[in-house]
Amino acid sequence: MTTTTSSSVLSLDALRAHWQGHRALTRRVIEAFPEDQLFSFSVGGMRPFGELAWEMSGVSAYNLTGLTTDDWSWHEPETAPPQSRAALLAAWDALTPALDAALPAADPDWFTRPQDMAWGTMPPLDSVLYAIDNEIHHRGQGYVYLRALGIEPPAFFER
Amino acid sequence: MTTTTSSSVLSLDALRAHWQGHRALTRRVIEAFPEDQLFSFSVGGMRPFGELAWEMSGVSAYNLTGLTTDDWSWHEPETAPPQSRAALLAAWDALTPALDAALPAADPDWFTRPQDMAWGTMPPLDSVLYAIDNEIHHRGQGYVYLRALGIEPPAFFER
Repeated sequence: MTTTTSSSVLSLDALRAHWQGHRALTRRVIEAFPEDQLFSFSVGGMRPFGELAWEMSGVSAYNLTGLTTDDWSWHEPETAPPQSRAALLAAWDALTPALDAALPAADPDWFTRPQDMAWGTMPPLDSVLYAIDNEIHHRGQGYVYLRALGIEPPAFFER
Repeated sequence: MTTTTSSSVLSLDALRAHWQGHRALTRRVIEAFPEDQLFSFSVGGMRPFGELAWEMSGVSAYNLTGLTTDDWSWHEPETAPPQSRAALLAAWDALTPALDAALPAADPDWFTRPQDMAWGTMPPLDSVLYAIDNEIHHRGQGYVYLRALGIEPPAFFER
């Protein structure tokens, strides 16, 4: 992805707000699952939503580390996957203020410069956009799980 | 969503490439469905993927009209929903070069200025981001349908 100064339209703070709006919606989806289904129910042999949300959390944490330390190597999470909604939400919420601080503080030139990352050479911008896209993708799958359980999901357009 | 010139990180052409990468992936998902399931199969009482893809196409067309004519009122599509994969893909492909031309041609100041739109007051930027997010969301649901049909979906990370 290339950027040109002349026609840039999205600020780091707007990207932060966009990301956090999605994270807030995903949090509501986590809360919408019955606790006994969050880590067990799925469709088509896919992972339960609790596991998908843990992946999202790990990708957010990867980006947070990169943004704050410039270390973009991949480290497996040091903690075991959560087995309860409370533990999942605690990990989720711990990232929220940290991301709020990290993203606007990034240097725009560095943020848009291709670098060696866990999944190839790309700017931090692309890594953050991928985190958001991946979260929307898997959260949409959670909507199907909720519908299959007869539960109305949170409104998609509310952030 | 607010923008500041000082720290903008995404150009109109990068946004175009990001959007078209997602549209290309969605096109592969449309192609991955068996023709007899595209407009009939679903999970949890949701819409079949052919209907979801038609909604995405309509939202893209809405943004194309707004970007090229500054008319952001909502018009129902003039054509009936497609009943075949070929008709759906033809509508999809017709938008591709039009979006490629429209987005980089937009004036960045206009693109980031809040305006009256079909779903409230927001800048065209937010409308385009919503189109992309909505497409990822529903496409993720299509992945569940494919898995439930025993079909391997296209790789999410390929654009």
